[in-house]
Amino acid sequence: MIDFEIITTDENARRGVLHTPHGPVQTPVFMPVGTNATVKMVAPDRLAETGTTIILSNAYHLALRPGEEVVRRLGGLHRFMNWGGPIITDSGGFQVLSLAKLRRVDDVGVRFQSHVDGSAILLTPERSIEIQNALGADIVMCFDECVSYPVEHYAARKAMERTLTWARRCRDTHREAEARGPAGPAANEFEQALFGIVQGSVFPDLRAECADRLTEMDFPGYALGGCSVGEGPELMNEVIELTLPHLPSGKPRYLMGVGAPEDILEAVERGIDMFDCVMPTRNARGACAFSSRGKVRLRNLQYRLSDDPIDDECDCYACRNFCRGYLRHLFNVKESLAAILTSIHNIRFYQKMMEGIRAAIIKQEFREFKQGFLGHYRSDV
Amino acid sequence: MIDFEIITTDENARRGVLHTPHGPVQTPVFMPVGTNATVKMVAPDRLAETGTTIILSNAYHLALRPGEEVVRRLGGLHRFMNWGGPIITDSGGFQVLSLAKLRRVDDVGVRFQSHVDGSAILLTPERSIEIQNALGADIVMCFDECVSYPVEHYAARKAMERTLTWARRCRDTHREAEARGPAGPAANEFEQALFGIVQGSVFPDLRAECADRLTEMDFPGYALGGCSVGEGPELMNEVIELTLPHLPSGKPRYLMGVGAPEDILEAVERGIDMFDCVMPTRNARGACAFSSRGKVRLRNLQYRLSDDPIDDECDCYACRNFCRGYLRHLFNVKESLAAILTSIHNIRFYQKMMEGIRAAIIKQEFREFKQGFLGHYRSDV
Repeated sequence: MIDFEIITTDENARRGVLHTPHGPVQTPVFMPVGTNATVKMVAPDRLAETGTTIILSNAYHLALRPGEEVVRRLGGLHRFMNWGGPIITDSGGFQVLSLAKLRRVDDVGVRFQSHVDGSAILLTPERSIEIQNALGADIVMCFDECVSYPVEHYAARKAMERTLTWARRCRDTHREAEARGPAGPAANEFEQALFGIVQGSVFPDLRAECADRLTEMDFPGYALGGCSVGEGPELMNEVIELTLPHLPSGKPRYLMGVGAPEDILEAVERGIDMFDCVMPTRNARGACAFSSRGKVRLRNLQYRLSDDPIDDECDCYACRNFCRGYLRHLFNVKESLAAILTSIHNIRFYQKMMEGIRAAIIKQEFREFKQGFLGHYRSDV
Repeated sequence: MIDFEIITTDENARRGVLHTPHGPVQTPVFMPVGTNATVKMVAPDRLAETGTTIILSNAYHLALRPGEEVVRRLGGLHRFMNWGGPIITDSGGFQVLSLAKLRRVDDVGVRFQSHVDGSAILLTPERSIEIQNALGADIVMCFDECVSYPVEHYAARKAMERTLTWARRCRDTHREAEARGPAGPAANEFEQALFGIVQGSVFPDLRAECADRLTEMDFPGYALGGCSVGEGPELMNEVIELTLPHLPSGKPRYLMGVGAPEDILEAVERGIDMFDCVMPTRNARGACAFSSRGKVRLRNLQYRLSDDPIDDECDCYACRNFCRGYLRHLFNVKESLAAILTSIHNIRFYQKMMEGIRAAIIKQEFREFKQGFLGHYRSDV
């Protein structure tokens, strides 16, 4: 099980430690995404070198391939992918709604066609927990219904009500599983923490009600789902601001799927503790690197003869050893090492930003840090 | 410049040291292929961990992209790709004939369309040396005409004569460049060793004559080109056997583009010192791993629940940390980490075999080593 400790706050920003069965996590934290039991292109030793302590994987993808029983029988997700640190798994709710075809949602769950082989699958709150129990992550997520944006109030309410019903079923299923004990010799031997997910789109009344009713169910942590789905940063920040007062202050708060460096800074300022996003790795594969002075499009002709690293303030393996001219060449000739190196760098960029955020909160200088970071980042030389 | 020292021999097998401006190379040696200034999927620190000391890159590919002047201005190939050890570049002769479209060969050189953008290019012995001088490898190769197999004797003779004429032009061009000194501040400051290439297809008279006439030109090392192009291992071994006595025994001998583990063992037994081949990395990308007990097809269903490493006798990063079941999953979901890990393993497999070969020659036990290796390797469990 987890334990969350808040070391200090700076206005609404929180500096904490999330204690997990696989070690402590300093918050605010950024969690790289390892959907298929691998952070794309990055081996676990490299990942640890970036300062990453916890990663996110996915129940939906791993249930389809290789199947959660394979992972369980090979020792659980930590051992399967050789990641000794904490892991969180998403429930599959978001992925079912964004990836699967021919889906039909009702109170039982979601019926859909696998995006891999077209087979008919029913994913329910109970089944999602069963999958996540078998995978054995430190933190598991409730199966929720995430609506797209924009959405009518009545439809958002319906999805929110269903999310709450499903949250209760997830909690009950999870408790029963914990009471039964490990499913087999290779299963995880520790108690997994189940987080609730707040839905409600951009409607203040729905977000507040959802947060209140989830809090009554007493989860060890809470996530904001359905954010960064097209509503834009202003609306997202409003949702965060109005929702967080309805969640218990002593529990970790996780903003799912967010986001750009600017988004993370705004959300930390409002009191979010945990983040995940595919942006550093996905952008890297598209030759877009982050730097302290803004994004660097590594295919650009201007870097043809550049002897500079991606970011001269970065200490990652890529920046210590390779120049932009070399990376541009690798992208041009479609060599995988390009995306490998840029993924390492982009993750390190995020982790270094988080290190800066954490240090600034301790020093009660978060606001200054944010302004300094953004002033530098947006100068875009 | 290089210096070659033979420590000991075991019948025809030779145990030597090739001293280069970027350090010593223990021979017999296997050189992974880094065509585009990267050994595919493998960062240089990982490559060094496999026991790799020298790599092969390519004048043809690098002249097309990024252009050899880009490499030169970014400090030369060693610095460009961050490989501190020795590098050898192939001349482009083989690549022009295997990759380019609409090529026309005459005494001047080869006119062809770039396989990248279709532009018309003329590659000559002089131009190949110019490219290789700019790249700055420790060892450069003569521009040769490599014929396909099978080929008529008259055509093989014609290509051999042209290869000899071109070898002289390469040597003269290279000498002039060396006399002029480094082409610029970023260029290599050391003398590059130019190797001659023996052609002649499978015809004993042509191979012997080519080797004799190249020897007269006095190169610091000699390669056998045009091998492993479809003639099969028996004919290739015959070509090696009959050619080597026509080359000076004190100079290194390089069998280009070879080969499978069995081929390397046969060639070492006959007196070859250097090898390169895409097999370990190309096979890895196709989910085929080498192991001490034969090839392992990692996509096979039988490995679905396998908790074993690729090779339980291997000490590579992949084998120390990941099981076959995980690798099978990664290949199935098309995650790049699959090919990254298997490439590392396959290169390490080759380097470990070379370590075994070198130790066996020292102990005058090469024949026993070869038999033991092949008996184990072909047991194919």
